[in-house]
Amino acid sequence: MKIILLSGGSGKRLWPLSNDARSKQLLKVLCAPGGEKESMIQRIVRQIRETGLTDEIVVAIGAKQRDAIELQLGDEITIVAEPSSRHTFPAIALACSYLAEQGTQADEPIIVVPSDTFTDNSYFQSIREMADAVTRRVADLVLMGIEPTYPSTRYGYILPAEHSGSDPVAVKNFIEKPSAEVAERLIAAGALWNGGVFAFRLGYLMDILQRMMPGADYRTLRANYEAMPKSSFDYAVVEKSESIAAVVYRGRWKDIGTWNSLTEELSERVHGNVKSEACDDTYIINELEIPLVCLGGKNMVVAASPDGILVTERGLSENLKHLVDGLGKRPMYETRRWGEYKVIDSVEYPDGYCALTKRLTLQPGKNISYQRHNCRTEVWTFLSGQGEIVLNGRRSPVNRGDVFTIPKGMLHGLRAITPLTFIEVQSGTNLVEEDIERFDFEW
Amino acid sequence: MKIILLSGGSGKRLWPLSNDARSKQLLKVLCAPGGEKESMIQRIVRQIRETGLTDEIVVAIGAKQRDAIELQLGDEITIVAEPSSRHTFPAIALACSYLAEQGTQADEPIIVVPSDTFTDNSYFQSIREMADAVTRRVADLVLMGIEPTYPSTRYGYILPAEHSGSDPVAVKNFIEKPSAEVAERLIAAGALWNGGVFAFRLGYLMDILQRMMPGADYRTLRANYEAMPKSSFDYAVVEKSESIAAVVYRGRWKDIGTWNSLTEELSERVHGNVKSEACDDTYIINELEIPLVCLGGKNMVVAASPDGILVTERGLSENLKHLVDGLGKRPMYETRRWGEYKVIDSVEYPDGYCALTKRLTLQPGKNISYQRHNCRTEVWTFLSGQGEIVLNGRRSPVNRGDVFTIPKGMLHGLRAITPLTFIEVQSGTNLVEEDIERFDFEW
Repeated sequence: MKIILLSGGSGKRLWPLSNDARSKQLLKVLCAPGGEKESMIQRIVRQIRETGLTDEIVVAIGAKQRDAIELQLGDEITIVAEPSSRHTFPAIALACSYLAEQGTQADEPIIVVPSDTFTDNSYFQSIREMADAVTRRVADLVLMGIEPTYPSTRYGYILPAEHSGSDPVAVKNFIEKPSAEVAERLIAAGALWNGGVFAFRLGYLMDILQRMMPGADYRTLRANYEAMPKSSFDYAVVEKSESIAAVVYRGRWKDIGTWNSLTEELSERVHGNVKSEACDDTYIINELEIPLVCLGGKNMVVAASPDGILVTERGLSENLKHLVDGLGKRPMYETRRWGEYKVIDSVEYPDGYCALTKRLTLQPGKNISYQRHNCRTEVWTFLSGQGEIVLNGRRSPVNRGDVFTIPKGMLHGLRAITPLTFIEVQSGTNLVEEDIERFDFEW
Repeated sequence: MKIILLSGGSGKRLWPLSNDARSKQLLKVLCAPGGEKESMIQRIVRQIRETGLTDEIVVAIGAKQRDAIELQLGDEITIVAEPSSRHTFPAIALACSYLAEQGTQADEPIIVVPSDTFTDNSYFQSIREMADAVTRRVADLVLMGIEPTYPSTRYGYILPAEHSGSDPVAVKNFIEKPSAEVAERLIAAGALWNGGVFAFRLGYLMDILQRMMPGADYRTLRANYEAMPKSSFDYAVVEKSESIAAVVYRGRWKDIGTWNSLTEELSERVHGNVKSEACDDTYIINELEIPLVCLGGKNMVVAASPDGILVTERGLSENLKHLVDGLGKRPMYETRRWGEYKVIDSVEYPDGYCALTKRLTLQPGKNISYQRHNCRTEVWTFLSGQGEIVLNGRRSPVNRGDVFTIPKGMLHGLRAITPLTFIEVQSGTNLVEEDIERFDFEW
């Protein structure tokens, strides 16, 4: 059995903590058994290992998440990053073609698991049953049907075929996000929530991919990724399949998609530099250094990050997405393979000239790539740590108090020996991450 | 008649918009007649002028407020700044001795007016009556008694003498912040709120000062200001006076001391980069550049500034002070005579080394003083505007993109020709405003 852990999405619903580079499943706000904090994806990887399901996990992710995922999951997990964002079917197809290229047999059961669900360990027992059902060829496609706890209007429903008493059950049809009234009738008729977990033989998916893009293997799919239609796995595979079964899961299950659902699982009510009094069932998370004071408030969520500040009633947090769509053109905080940065100031002048000031920290032994920019100048003021800087091929040590001006076109690289913190003032006419040319360098 | 406008206090109750350098009376959040925004102190000065009361206003302020007050009130107002903070009696005595030095006669009525009350113009008619009462020698000290609108426990009460039917009324005694029950009985007995407005002849106060510090004039009082006891005008003068009358004011009166009272007078419900939905009777002020999103919430105040973030129920905002006492060692935003700055980042390392990053803007024609620091290095990166820099006596033009490193001990000054914006990274072992030596320089 191989597991493809899906990690994508912009996570607008958990703004301002989540952004394009830090999806909700990467927020370290859950409580791990040892008392430490862990993210949703770390929790699921830990659970997969604890239940002995498999060590062969491939994480299928959006391109912008690579650094953050690597930092959280370490080197033992294989990451297959989308070259660009094209929805779940292309991402799963890319991960499958990677597995095929690595020698996985066509009969091997593949399980696609979302990374933003909160479950107990019995969930992974159901996943094992799904893999067994695939091996036994019960159906081409085996889903997980979650026993509903209330007539939700936010989920898709799986309606089992009548007289389908066995587990796995045969699937009659799907109903997407019904009204509460319809949901009640569906539940009475034995319908299940669609948990977004899919199991199939590798060969089944590779055949679908071959029909769509003849001759496609991992390399050609990567190279022609833009040619793939932007379609969901549900649309491209599930809805077209004629042989579907579902394993029923009756344990704890929750998709942590909104502030309301996340807060129920938070390790603490208050995170960061917060003072509060007379707050009733209110959760406060402050990632900024300035203090956040909360006096009163009932059933609220207050969250502050370099991307923005949110004050919401918990029950209304589902409506957040449309309010934050279009806010913030760029992430103001990112963890990267070399460390992290946050934007501390940003100005744009009417003539198009911009300035962006960041505080960056490089972890020991890590480096940023040897690079140059065509449209911006950078000024680095070092606050702490030791490292080595390379400017147009010349190496120098860097220490606290050093200042370097890096004009447009100058090749520069930086490596940390101890944790290295500096302030960077970028200025120029086009301050985008894409204004970067990377070069090889032997540190 | 001369008016001493009292402007002091740290304004913790309107945190995070107010700080030691920006008291609540300096917040430009009220609506001026032309639709522009004005601060409480600007409103009172405008009202004094509109009602033709006097043009001779002396503003008695704390030392840290000078630049901000000058920017708001312009050159036509005389400012007497306390050398250090010593409560209301020393501040009023200093302003009186300044008036005496300027040739004001001992018989001249002086009116002390607080700068954080919100009133209509008839208030100034009552002030005129107070001055008349002083001139007619009705009493040594004439107060303003506000007709109470509810049994407040937050104000002091003035109890008129029995059978004192005339206006001004004779004062029998004072009751400080009574219980609600006592307040009700006081109101039934005809008591008035003490509005903190005091009228007296200049000579009356100068005599008290002479008894306290024989021979004191403006210069010696300034020079020996630290020797003055920290006492309130109420304690040092009002409680000891044997001849007190009160003019009754029946118009609109409010002290804008809490978020709850301020919000009722705000020009708009939302200020700054805010998106809101389903908010009920909620006020949102965002002085940060990052977006603030508010979804739901009833009777709340949400305020964000470089000093911090506040989320409070309006009815609880009176309890704010003790929560924010001790927060933030330094103001993160200040307006100064030369322009303004905000702190965008601040780090302190375990070994005592600190870094503070600011964005500053100098107004055209203004300069920061020619100065040097003993404990910190500054790195300036210019983002916009033209100006002139002086480093150890050498002048150079400055333009967008220029970078200057100013090590400890280097003399430096800066003057703006057009609005001049730059990022300053300060670093060193003692980042306090006091680490500054100023030198004369002929621009």
